Amino acid sequence: MPSLIECVPNFSEGRRAEVVDEIVRTVRQIDGVTLLDYSRDETHNRSVVTFAGSAEPVVRAATAAVGRAVELIDMEQHSGAHPRIGSVDVIPFVPLGATRMEECVDLARRFGEQIARTYELPVYLYGEAALRPGRRRLADVRRGQYEGLKAELGADPERDPDFGPKRPHPRAGAVAVGARKPLIAFNVNLATDDITLAQRIAETIRESSGGLPAVQAMAVQLENPGQPRYAQVSMNLVDWEQTGIARVVSEIRQLARQFGADIDHCELIGLAPAGALLEVAAEALALRGFNADQVLELRLAKDR
Amino acid sequence: MPSLIECVPNFSEGRRAEVVDEIVRTVRQIDGVTLLDYSRDETHNRSVVTFAGSAEPVVRAATAAVGRAVELIDMEQHSGAHPRIGSVDVIPFVPLGATRMEECVDLARRFGEQIARTYELPVYLYGEAALRPGRRRLADVRRGQYEGLKAELGADPERDPDFGPKRPHPRAGAVAVGARKPLIAFNVNLATDDITLAQRIAETIRESSGGLPAVQAMAVQLENPGQPRYAQVSMNLVDWEQTGIARVVSEIRQLARQFGADIDHCELIGLAPAGALLEVAAEALALRGFNADQVLELRLAKDR
Repeated sequence: MPSLIECVPNFSEGRRAEVVDEIVRTVRQIDGVTLLDYSRDETHNRSVVTFAGSAEPVVRAATAAVGRAVELIDMEQHSGAHPRIGSVDVIPFVPLGATRMEECVDLARRFGEQIARTYELPVYLYGEAALRPGRRRLADVRRGQYEGLKAELGADPERDPDFGPKRPHPRAGAVAVGARKPLIAFNVNLATDDITLAQRIAETIRESSGGLPAVQAMAVQLENPGQPRYAQVSMNLVDWEQTGIARVVSEIRQLARQFGADIDHCELIGLAPAGALLEVAAEALALRGFNADQVLELRLAKDR
Repeated sequence: MPSLIECVPNFSEGRRAEVVDEIVRTVRQIDGVTLLDYSRDETHNRSVVTFAGSAEPVVRAATAAVGRAVELIDMEQHSGAHPRIGSVDVIPFVPLGATRMEECVDLARRFGEQIARTYELPVYLYGEAALRPGRRRLADVRRGQYEGLKAELGADPERDPDFGPKRPHPRAGAVAVGARKPLIAFNVNLATDDITLAQRIAETIRESSGGLPAVQAMAVQLENPGQPRYAQVSMNLVDWEQTGIARVVSEIRQLARQFGADIDHCELIGLAPAGALLEVAAEALALRGFNADQVLELRLAKDR
């Protein structure tokens, strides 16, 4: 079976729909690539496109999308709530199915070198593809953002890119290219509007403050007209095989109850690997001897 | 997207491995068909083969498998614990993915007519494909089994087949061909060896005695060496969208607790549709706005 790789580039444009549509169209045109999802956020002024396929078409689609973004998105004109270093802020490659992480690491490095050359773009390798240990975390690569990078790139050898010129691209800035496991964006909405409780819970469970491994968490106050004002614990589960959905939810439920609150409901944002949800089902049922090959559609997909 | 159809023929041979292997080999040889599962039971003297594909290759594989079974399995020599009417006892067609039930009904009828002609086999249409209301339930079609059918077929017009001769095939008997929804074989093992409790629960929840719709249930005493003696509620969920796994398990848990017992663990036998397990996960998490397209592998399979 050929390897199956997901690519999730993030673009620094969330307001001009026609620009995002053009990038999506570019991806869609590549044979052998399946567009899985895309979303545009005006507040963040940022868009996320998700597609998958085997290595070769995925690289072709990612390269073409970077080309369009370099052309159409000018970082000199960009502002938004979300940290970013370039027109294409970050391009992770994610192994799906039986594909090995090493393959995505190799791919990210080859791809990074290639776009650095083609578009004269400084490229930082992050995640599993990082060549410097200080660049594994995306937040570290993104420190100071586009504006900071303009000042430091070329002046501070610590900020030298892994590939490409030692100066930002005049319009497109720089880009982080990496390999990572599938990430699950998962929110727990508490049956309360007490944001300090959500904050306390987020701080307790997130890895960076000594909580659960591979969990990033923050508190968000939800204010949607016509809906209750939920206090939300908004999370990225960056390695669900380390800390899964069920574990996180049971932890949050316990913490909420300690303060007389509870979980109202949960939300899955975007895509999640089947295994992460099947694990929840298997746990809820105390299912013995279960494996994902017993799921008809997964068994079928495997042989195709 | 071409339709995707599952076929689950049951053969009246579970003791001669070489015969079952030969039938499985016959199915495997057909291009465009994926063999999903097969199992052989010595006590029942019966085997179940599961495969899937689009209509045309599935029909070709089923036809070839019937041919081998008619050749290799002689009902005059057959005895076993499981009710049966022929060398191939029953052949259900099951719609998968976006395939509609009507397509499987048409397919079952065309296929039934064709094998009746090719192999001079009396064919009874059952399930959604039934032409007579009294033949919807497989148990009714199978009444009297092979031996009873030999006496009644030709003598009693009520037993006239839908296709084929009004006499059993001299070696292969008759066959039931039908269309049905995916069926989930699911067992709940109680934390007790009290078989009368399992019997009481099975009777309370099964549809035939006024319990949950689309649930077949019986009690089984599990006696596996080196394991606790569980009393088991063994079920077929014949329409999980009507009564799902979570519903059945919560009902059984409640009943067991009324008698001071509880559920020890559950078992999924063979294959289940992804939706049935995702429903369990979504319920356990109180997941709002979830749909199966958010599952990476299912989303990918859809576009292929």
